[in-house]
Amino acid sequence: TARNLFLLPGDGIGPEAMGEVRKIIAYMNEAMNAGFVIDEGLVGGSAYDAHGAAISEADMQKALAADAVLFGAVGGPKWDSVPYEVRPEAGLLRLRKDLQLFANLRPAICYPALASASSLKPELVEGLDILIIRELTGGVYFGEPKEIIDLGNGQKRGIDTQVYDTYEIERIAGVAFEMARTRQNRVCSMEKRNVMKSGVLWNQVVTETHKAKYSDVQLEHMLADAGGMQLVRQPKQFDVIVTDNLFGDMLSDVAAMLTGSLGMLPSASLGAPDGKTGKRKALYEPVHGSAPDIAGKGIANPIAMIASFAMCLRYSFNLVKEADDLEKAIANVLDKGIRTGDIMADGARQVGTVEMGDAILAEFKTL
Amino acid sequence: TARNLFLLPGDGIGPEAMGEVRKIIAYMNEAMNAGFVIDEGLVGGSAYDAHGAAISEADMQKALAADAVLFGAVGGPKWDSVPYEVRPEAGLLRLRKDLQLFANLRPAICYPALASASSLKPELVEGLDILIIRELTGGVYFGEPKEIIDLGNGQKRGIDTQVYDTYEIERIAGVAFEMARTRQNRVCSMEKRNVMKSGVLWNQVVTETHKAKYSDVQLEHMLADAGGMQLVRQPKQFDVIVTDNLFGDMLSDVAAMLTGSLGMLPSASLGAPDGKTGKRKALYEPVHGSAPDIAGKGIANPIAMIASFAMCLRYSFNLVKEADDLEKAIANVLDKGIRTGDIMADGARQVGTVEMGDAILAEFKTL
Ligand SMILES: CC(C)[C@H](C(=O)O)[C@@H](O)C(=O)O
Ligand SMILES: CC(C)[C@H](C(=O)O)[C@@H](O)C(=O)O
Repeated sequence: TARNLFLLPGDGIGPEAMGEVRKIIAYMNEAMNAGFVIDEGLVGGSAYDAHGAAISEADMQKALAADAVLFGAVGGPKWDSVPYEVRPEAGLLRLRKDLQLFANLRPAICYPALASASSLKPELVEGLDILIIRELTGGVYFGEPKEIIDLGNGQKRGIDTQVYDTYEIERIAGVAFEMARTRQNRVCSMEKRNVMKSGVLWNQVVTETHKAKYSDVQLEHMLADAGGMQLVRQPKQFDVIVTDNLFGDMLSDVAAMLTGSLGMLPSASLGAPDGKTGKRKALYEPVHGSAPDIAGKGIANPIAMIASFAMCLRYSFNLVKEADDLEKAIANVLDKGIRTGDIMADGARQVGTVEMGDAILAEFKTL
Repeated sequence: TARNLFLLPGDGIGPEAMGEVRKIIAYMNEAMNAGFVIDEGLVGGSAYDAHGAAISEADMQKALAADAVLFGAVGGPKWDSVPYEVRPEAGLLRLRKDLQLFANLRPAICYPALASASSLKPELVEGLDILIIRELTGGVYFGEPKEIIDLGNGQKRGIDTQVYDTYEIERIAGVAFEMARTRQNRVCSMEKRNVMKSGVLWNQVVTETHKAKYSDVQLEHMLADAGGMQLVRQPKQFDVIVTDNLFGDMLSDVAAMLTGSLGMLPSASLGAPDGKTGKRKALYEPVHGSAPDIAGKGIANPIAMIASFAMCLRYSFNLVKEADDLEKAIANVLDKGIRTGDIMADGARQVGTVEMGDAILAEFKTL
């Protein structure tokens, strides 16, 4: 049976990075009979240029129908002053919301070959392997009212609303506890219960969910500001971190930067399993952005995009061996000293986007 | 004329740290005729134990009447399950709100003697000197509605509201630009305008304020998540950072941890100058918390509290020379290798709270 992938390369370095994933897909179809069927659409600034929207209705339908969406990156100075409703990010936010991708998995791992690239002392990040589970369809990103009101007298009021319901916290906590069981069995939940009522509820529901169904997992609570500090101080103390949409945005970026491997980090955004088929909607995207300054130059690092495809193999298609091999291919290529400019080091060989993709594919073929 | 100080030592290590400031105040009164008049009250858990509130009305009146408030720290496991409205933090939040302390100044400086204590590579933090200006009386901390609603069916809804009005953004931006003029003349404003309407307004108002009155200062805008990353990647790129209450909470904690000097960092929370007298209401507090695990043992580091008093000398009493000397006394004592346990290093001499306070006072006397 066909495996339907919908590709949304987006803006900036998105299309270049996606090109390298296409090669791996083509190889898997030929050599492994993987049966991937590919369609492609526009998102972000490029969709705005073509359709006046950050994603067209037709492409939204395709995303909804696909088994998985591969997403590149969106945005760039060209679209800095387009109206708020059609800004590049709106395409990504609509995809997350309409596909109900409530669970964002952001691994922060430190590739051994890159430990020295971190701004932290190497001993603090060597072997780092954190999984941040970020709630992705709730909180201040989507709560209403969300508006700017004109108060007269030259005064305006900007309003955003942070909202969480019990079921939203329950289901993201469930994902965190289940992921923890496949790892070191430890979850740290972060909120600001000392300031936010949504934080009080978050804390309560995570505690209850733990007690009711996951008491075998070790659970800790931390205030989100202290959590940011601890990530910088001693990141290896964490296994799985579960947190809300906005704190997750901040904390996962800090964690990503710690690894020294920002250009390398993938993410998966998953929906709930379908009652009948058990399938989850899913979108896979690199943590890095569209990097407009280096777009089109053939120098972007495609590894985060390729690693995102590895997550897709694992979580959407249960191709565990293939996912493991693709991740190993990335690590092996790094061990051989092959590097794009962003992760260049003394004695390494600097390559461009295409060569990096080729090297990973060649390595993948040997595994 | 008398200089009225209201001391709120609070919980945990707060009282011990405050004790060392008292000695400096006594010395300044005797030797320099400084004319400080001291009163003292309760805040946080200790106020709850005494009055059933996180601060009593009588103490609130004293705080409002004082020239400056010196605040220690609040909270501890003992009060983890007191009702939300009277939790220890409520005392601090009420002080900030009722005294209208909208401008929170959080210097993140790296003491040369402590550069190696940072988890970052020393070359990234040596000489670090960032000033974070955090809006402190608005945003999601105080916006209404702020509640947990029972929706029935076992579902609850937690709601917090992020609100910013033009004037609130204007005045905090003004503080940032003015502080920048006394430093490297650069401001970086951080928000999430790509997701939050309050971020859109924040960005607009900062831009307009800059154009109207501070165009001599260099202004940059950064998304708050990218800002967190950049703080970890290359902290020295920043001079003054201005941001909202919640982002400021997160980012200033990350910045504090970068310095390796968390136990050393002070903060000032300032109100607007009074129309007639030009005086600002003000509260000074260390960035660290109440550290209940080490409270009462005589080992807490009093430096952040003493450095907070130095900020008080500077901003509330315009005692610039005295503030400079007190800060220099701290640096000199560190240079001599005198350390509390939290900042202990090879070859240094470990001392307790009182000895550290004595050493700083002795040094201060020589300057
Ligand atoms: C592009 C932006 C809307 C997005 C977010 O804030 O969620 C990004 O920062 C991310 O973390 O995926
Ligand atoms: C104690 C708490 C309410 C407070 C805050 O969140 O503002 C603290 O974290 C701070 O940064 O001063």
